[in-house]
Amino acid sequence: ADAEAIAAARARQDSLTKPAGSLGRLEDIAVFMAGWQGTAQPVIEQGRAAIFAGNHGFVVHGVSAFPASVTAAMVGNFTAGGAAINALAGAAGLDLRVVALDLDRPTADFTVAAAMDETECLAALSAGAAVVEPGLHLLIVGDMGIGNSTAAAALCARSYGGTPAQWVGPGTGVDAGGIARKVAVVEQALACHANAPDTPFETLRRLGGREIAAIAGAVLEARRLRIPVVLDGFISCAALAPLAVAVPAITDHCLAGHCSAEPGHIRLLEHLGLDPLLSLGMRLGEGSGAALAVSVIRAALATHNGMATFAEAGVADGL
Amino acid sequence: ADAEAIAAARARQDSLTKPAGSLGRLEDIAVFMAGWQGTAQPVIEQGRAAIFAGNHGFVVHGVSAFPASVTAAMVGNFTAGGAAINALAGAAGLDLRVVALDLDRPTADFTVAAAMDETECLAALSAGAAVVEPGLHLLIVGDMGIGNSTAAAALCARSYGGTPAQWVGPGTGVDAGGIARKVAVVEQALACHANAPDTPFETLRRLGGREIAAIAGAVLEARRLRIPVVLDGFISCAALAPLAVAVPAITDHCLAGHCSAEPGHIRLLEHLGLDPLLSLGMRLGEGSGAALAVSVIRAALATHNGMATFAEAGVADGL
Repeated sequence: ADAEAIAAARARQDSLTKPAGSLGRLEDIAVFMAGWQGTAQPVIEQGRAAIFAGNHGFVVHGVSAFPASVTAAMVGNFTAGGAAINALAGAAGLDLRVVALDLDRPTADFTVAAAMDETECLAALSAGAAVVEPGLHLLIVGDMGIGNSTAAAALCARSYGGTPAQWVGPGTGVDAGGIARKVAVVEQALACHANAPDTPFETLRRLGGREIAAIAGAVLEARRLRIPVVLDGFISCAALAPLAVAVPAITDHCLAGHCSAEPGHIRLLEHLGLDPLLSLGMRLGEGSGAALAVSVIRAALATHNGMATFAEAGVADGL
Repeated sequence: ADAEAIAAARARQDSLTKPAGSLGRLEDIAVFMAGWQGTAQPVIEQGRAAIFAGNHGFVVHGVSAFPASVTAAMVGNFTAGGAAINALAGAAGLDLRVVALDLDRPTADFTVAAAMDETECLAALSAGAAVVEPGLHLLIVGDMGIGNSTAAAALCARSYGGTPAQWVGPGTGVDAGGIARKVAVVEQALACHANAPDTPFETLRRLGGREIAAIAGAVLEARRLRIPVVLDGFISCAALAPLAVAVPAITDHCLAGHCSAEPGHIRLLEHLGLDPLLSLGMRLGEGSGAALAVSVIRAALATHNGMATFAEAGVADGL
């Protein structure tokens, strides 16, 4: 991030007509945005929501309340404009891009094989990066993929340790039997890949999925282009877990939009060192929590750019 | 609230293309708005931010980091459009009304007398009610008044018990000495009015202030007109404390916009039975936290009204 822009934005915050620090995290958000945009007065004119969809081979083990066909059906709903992310991206003033990744070709069942071969994983990373363009002021990422909270749990358990049960939750709403099946699948996957090379790429391709790798690719490309990112819930954060273990600063350009109701998310956010902006019991995915958080970021910039300074207002300085 | 509209809104939520409950509090907010607006598909076309300003006689005891003249200076800043609430009300699409209540005539020093006589308190309540009109879809309330976190602490201590120190905080930023003076002032005020009749009106007029009574008047008028309200921080919630002790359901038409950094606020919210939408370390007043929360409410209604149902989208029912 740009140290000069950060200092200028912080100085501007301290000159605005309010007691110092009284806007709390809104002040920090404005300074964060300044640092990554490289300007004292950051804006969101070009904001994008990138939602990636993929299917997972391990769903044959009964880990989701819904059939894999729902992934494609929901992509159709995104395209038709009827899903939550359509409404939320619209309310947040974001351009919505939906990328469906080989939905008719699920990943391999990761309890017995790597989810993706090298070429497939690289293709998914590239598909994510391709959605990120220079000039974007903000990127939010989201996911759609029946079964992907199981993949996210596997990525977290391999990256950060802990038992599979500590990372598995109800997802879209499985019952106790479903949770037990999810735990068993994660245990089998970890055992199958126990001797794999301990690198971020190997963890991602063996235990991730196409939409998860695409999210990682998008976040990395945003970092290269110094575009600030808002992460969504458990899945989008888990996409970064393998890399964050190796390079903790990789999430420095990211805000956590919200804390999901999925129980593994709060634990994951602690590992990533991210303090979520919102905590509203959401657990939908699709980038929904991240899109909602954009309203908070817009409000932070509205105060940062729109308020009068003490000098302009003629209010007793040092309020 | 309208039970039929609530049932219809809940049924609509359950028909939308998402797992049941996956939008968390957004779903509850949409149903809440439906109940008070009396329609299955509530909207915010006419939303108003009402900010009340008043001055306090007890500030002679050195309870604020700023002189009382800042109240009028900030009202000037509101009028000129340079304050945080201008930016935040604009971002939230709210009509902003600022009501300055006799700023050149502070309340009486409540350590030795009632802050207001009956006529003054009724006038302030009426001034608050006058800002609320039939047809508003949402009202947010906020305050400006140097010293008013001390009045709020006195109202809370008299209403809910506890020691003054449990309700006093740094406000806009006093140091330890300032906090000690605030505690002493609240103790003196409680002692002075210990034998006063134990009614909401007497507590409000003796320990409140004009802007605080106006907030209470606005919230009551909104209730009469069935207009949902978003409360701001410690001051606006404290305005309701005397009445809420007597009539706990009085806040049923209210959402708590946020939890302030002022330490008494979280305790007060628990007494009021309100779960704040946001917790971002804000402590400015002016309705700033409530205005920010309106973005969340707008997003809740955008999903509620804008999403496709399972039937419309042709997605497998019962997702």
